[in-house]
Parts: sequence; structure tokens; C-alpha cells
Amino acid sequence: MAASCRVAVCGATGAVGNQMIQCLEERDFPVSEIRLLASERSRGRSLKFKGQEVPVQVIGKGSFEGMDIALFSAGGGTSKQWAPQAWAEGAVVVDNSSAWRMDPQVPLVVPECNPEDIARYKNKGIIANPNCSTIQMVVVLKPLHLAAGLKRVVVTTFQAVSGTGQKAIFELQNQLKAIHEGNQPENKVYPHQIALNLFPHIGPFTDNGYTEEEMKMVNETRKILHEDGILVSATCSRVPVYYSHSEALNLAFERKLTAKEARDILAKAPLVKVVDEPATNQYPTPLMAAHQDYTLVGRIREDISQANGIDLWLVADNIRKGAATNAVQIAEILLRDYL
Amino acid sequence: MAASCRVAVCGATGAVGNQMIQCLEERDFPVSEIRLLASERSRGRSLKFKGQEVPVQVIGKGSFEGMDIALFSAGGGTSKQWAPQAWAEGAVVVDNSSAWRMDPQVPLVVPECNPEDIARYKNKGIIANPNCSTIQMVVVLKPLHLAAGLKRVVVTTFQAVSGTGQKAIFELQNQLKAIHEGNQPENKVYPHQIALNLFPHIGPFTDNGYTEEEMKMVNETRKILHEDGILVSATCSRVPVYYSHSEALNLAFERKLTAKEARDILAKAPLVKVVDEPATNQYPTPLMAAHQDYTLVGRIREDISQANGIDLWLVADNIRKGAATNAVQIAEILLRDYL
Repeated sequence: MAASCRVAVCGATGAVGNQMIQCLEERDFPVSEIRLLASERSRGRSLKFKGQEVPVQVIGKGSFEGMDIALFSAGGGTSKQWAPQAWAEGAVVVDNSSAWRMDPQVPLVVPECNPEDIARYKNKGIIANPNCSTIQMVVVLKPLHLAAGLKRVVVTTFQAVSGTGQKAIFELQNQLKAIHEGNQPENKVYPHQIALNLFPHIGPFTDNGYTEEEMKMVNETRKILHEDGILVSATCSRVPVYYSHSEALNLAFERKLTAKEARDILAKAPLVKVVDEPATNQYPTPLMAAHQDYTLVGRIREDISQANGIDLWLVADNIRKGAATNAVQIAEILLRDYL
Repeated sequence: MAASCRVAVCGATGAVGNQMIQCLEERDFPVSEIRLLASERSRGRSLKFKGQEVPVQVIGKGSFEGMDIALFSAGGGTSKQWAPQAWAEGAVVVDNSSAWRMDPQVPLVVPECNPEDIARYKNKGIIANPNCSTIQMVVVLKPLHLAAGLKRVVVTTFQAVSGTGQKAIFELQNQLKAIHEGNQPENKVYPHQIALNLFPHIGPFTDNGYTEEEMKMVNETRKILHEDGILVSATCSRVPVYYSHSEALNLAFERKLTAKEARDILAKAPLVKVVDEPATNQYPTPLMAAHQDYTLVGRIREDISQANGIDLWLVADNIRKGAATNAVQIAEILLRDYL
């Protein structure tokens, strides 16, 4: 294990990049040097790390020289272009974009599910961080799958605007302000008003009628769980919430699981917290899940519509466990076991 | 067919009662006399009907004398107590509460699905109006069921606060105002903040872990479609939207339906409008569905996780088609065919 590590954060000024910097600090990641990278747009900005102002550099050739790990969260285009360069310059990339996730050479990792896959990082020098909606789902699915054999998932998501980035947070704020002041809200980021509204559209539509976001939940789940036979159908929707994605899951297993067994299994699962006391109105909500790293799970019940079925409801902070925290956890294992 | 009709509206001052009065007016229901009834709390109030101020009367013995039809939307307790009295005094009751819905003697009617059941109104003089979430779902399920044989439904709802009544609309307004002004929002109606939040809890919890709202979607669907074998699992959630419930449906049929076939069938279904043009971001949203009577349906696609499966998304105004309009439609058939 390396005692400390030089870390680049690429896309440092975005919502997830910012949270990555905060996670490195909070989790006491042994950073000997930090380099903050962003696009031309952020030239001249600086960000705080451990009380120090760190200037943001514009990404370019040589940006990753001398770095051990590069955390990327700057969109698929930037990752496609710069991740191979980062590896060539000596930094292992942990990439939060969707650019490399389904590349068979690239491991796609949730530390609670498949930390062993990190070993394959040398193929391309890239480890992919899954999609936010997938991460929080698989931390709950994995232990249940081990216990009873997961066959099929029907999932409906309620996704926070922060998943789209800082600009969507502003859009919801501005729309609520306009409504409060009796003005017509404007939409620039989304095709429809999001304040006091919602819509079943996240990411581009694909030929089969599902969106790319929905197909990520299918394909990434299979890759992370190493089970190509698991069937998944997803409907992903955007809701007027700032932080935390909620998901309603309907699950089919090979073997019977009682609600109590499922609850007991999840109570022991890493980074999962069971919040399931209907009698006192305790079940996960976005406000409850925001700004921490647990995936909260509740409404655990035996499905009355199929044999060996379980229904449940889960919520996690999409910017933390759904993105930044998961990436920093991967970096921790990389540093501890491989660098 | 009676040429005109004396109508009592019981619970006239509530969100649904108000909408019932508006629907009677809009649809030119041939009202020869209207009587507005409410509880002691509304004593002294009056409401407009066709430009005239109509005083609200406190419900009591004799309230229904001389009335032909009584539209009830005053909660289960009031319906339990007063619906039999209304019938004894000569008025046929169309009841929007859950009090009589599962009574085998009482027809539960959605005019697009089972208008013939109205014939059984004489058993108790009561016709039940289904739950809002169920009505909008069955107008879409019925024509698909006729075409391909519905076997199983997994539904997740996104329900507007108006479903809880006028007080919940105020609660969401007040919470948004408090947040805008930098104050702590208060919750009195719901156990959790609803502004910028959501929760999987509508109605009391039952012993099997589902809520009463969720079980209504199971039991009422079977009763309306006359199919006790249809399997349903529901997760019902409250979202920060004023009007219109959204629902994500995952459906299993006996026979294969292509997405195109499902779309064609729904395009011809009464009171259903297909809004399904992903390429131009056209799919149903709550803002789009509010203040009209159509159930909007989109995101129609073949389920990639099961044979003979269809996924879709539907939205309707819960106060109109989900409550008041459906009740007035029942009254129209009652008047036309039976009185």
C-alpha cells in the first residue's frame, strides 16, 4: 500500500467534482498533492481543499503527469478524450461518466458488490463508476441475490435534479422563485417545467422505447453482479427534488424470501440502512437520505402478485453514494491493494 | 330518460365536491334543482352554481328529500352514515368515498369499463366511484385486457397532494413559501415535508406491508374488470405536485401485444389520449394532464424483461377523471338509462 497519493480531479467545478473533493477531505484520503482540472470555462477559478485555495487548471497535455489517480467527472466526451491520456501519463482513472462503463476491458465497480474487479484496472488504466441509479440499486440487490437468486427486477425511479448537474438545481430554484412571484417559469435545461411537475424522461431515447438511463440500469446491473441472465425493466423519471434518487423495486427470486429475511439480510449489508417502521411513518425519503452515504431501504414486503417476490423502496444521495463517494471508495481500494 | 333531475352534492365545500359542482355545470347536466350539503364546519357558506349563489346546508335528516341523485364526497364516515339515509329519502347515491366500494351489493363503476354494473344500483341505492389511482389505470387496462388478456400489473404511482384535499394543497403552498423565505417548513397534514421531497405512504398501512391505497388498486381493479385472477402489486407515493397522478405500469398479458398494437388500441379508447412522441419529448406530465378529463398515456414499449409484456406511463387529473368527472359520468348514465 502506498502511504499517500497524488490525485487529480477532472471536472472539479461540477456538482460531482466538488463532492469528490469534499469526499477526499471527509474520508481522510491520504492526498499528498491535489490537482484540480476543468474545461476552459472554469479558467481562473479556484476551489478549497483542506482549507487551502487550489487554482483550477485547464485540462491539457501533461495535466496528469506526476499524478497517481485521476477522478473524472466531466462528461462522456472529456472522458473518452482524456482518460487514455491520463493513463499514458501515469494516472489510473476512476471515471464517473458513462463513456467506458460497458467496455469489456474496463471494470465497473461498486465496492460493496464487486471490489475484486478493480484488479482488472491495468487493461486500460480505467475503472468505471456506475450510473447513480444503478449504484444504489445494486448495493441492495447484491445481498438479496446471494441469499435467494435474483431473477427479475421491475424498477421505477424518482430522480433528483442534481443528477443533471448544478444547472438543473438552479433551474428548479429559479422556477420555484418565478412561481412564488407570480411569473411564468422558464425551462432551459429540461424540455418541461420541473417545479410542481415531473416527467418520465432521463437521457436520450433508444430504439426499443427505453431511455439510455433505463438501459444503463439493465446493462450495468448485469455487469456489476456478473449475471447476464438477470432481467430488468426500468422506468426512470425526474422529480422536483434537489438531492437523492428514490426507487420502487419489484423483485422476483428463485427461492422464497420472507419480508423478515430480506430485512435481516439488508440490516447487515454494508452501506445500507434499513428504515422500515410503517407504524411510526418511518420509510426512506429524499430529504432523509441527502448528504450522507447510506442507501436507505424500507417498505420491504412480500409481493402479493407473484411467488418468491419482494417489493421494496430505496433512497440514496445521488451525488454522494451515487457518484462521488463510490468513486473515492474505489480509489481507496486501488491505493490500499494495488498502488 | 328523465328530462331533468334534482341533485344533492354532499361534501360540496371540499376539493372534489367543488369540482363536482363545476362538472355538473360544464357538462350541462340537466339540473332542475341543486342542493349543496356539508358538515357543521361549512355552516353559513355559499357556493356558485350557474352564476347563482347557492347556500350550503348542514347535512341532516331530510336533507335528501325531493332529490333524485346525491353525489357524495365527504369522507367514508359521512358516506357510511348518510348514504343509506339518502336512498331511504329517495335519492340514488354516487359515492366517492371508499366506504361502499368493496360491498358486493354495491356496483363500482368506471363508465369506460363497466357501465352495465350501474343496473345493480337498486340493491342499496348506492353506486361507488373508485379510487382516483384506480380509475385512471383501469381506463387504460380495460381495452388492453380485451385485446390480449391481462395477467399481472406492477404499478408505481406518483400522486398529487390534491388527492389528500384542499388542506394538503395549502400545506405544499405554505412549505414552498417558507422555504422561499428561508424559514423551516411545517408539516401538519403529512408526517413528512412534501415540498422538495416525496414518500411512499398513502393511506394507513395494512398487515401485509402494503398500504390501504395500494390494496385499493389491487381489489378495485379486479372488481371493475370482473377478473379476480388479475395479479396486481402497487407502490403508491406522494409527490410535490398539485394536480394529476402519474403511474408507471409494467404489464404482463396472455398474448403478445406489440407496442404499436397497444398504441393503436389506446388511441381508440374512450377518454384516453395517447401522448407518445419521444423524439419531440412528448409524453404525459402532471401539468399537461391537469384540468381536463383525459387519461394521457405514453412511453408505450415492449417490456424487455418478460414475454408478452408492455410498459407504459399514464397521467390523469385526480380530482376530475379520478373523482368528480367519473361520478358525474355515472350520474349521466343513471339519469339516461334508469331514472
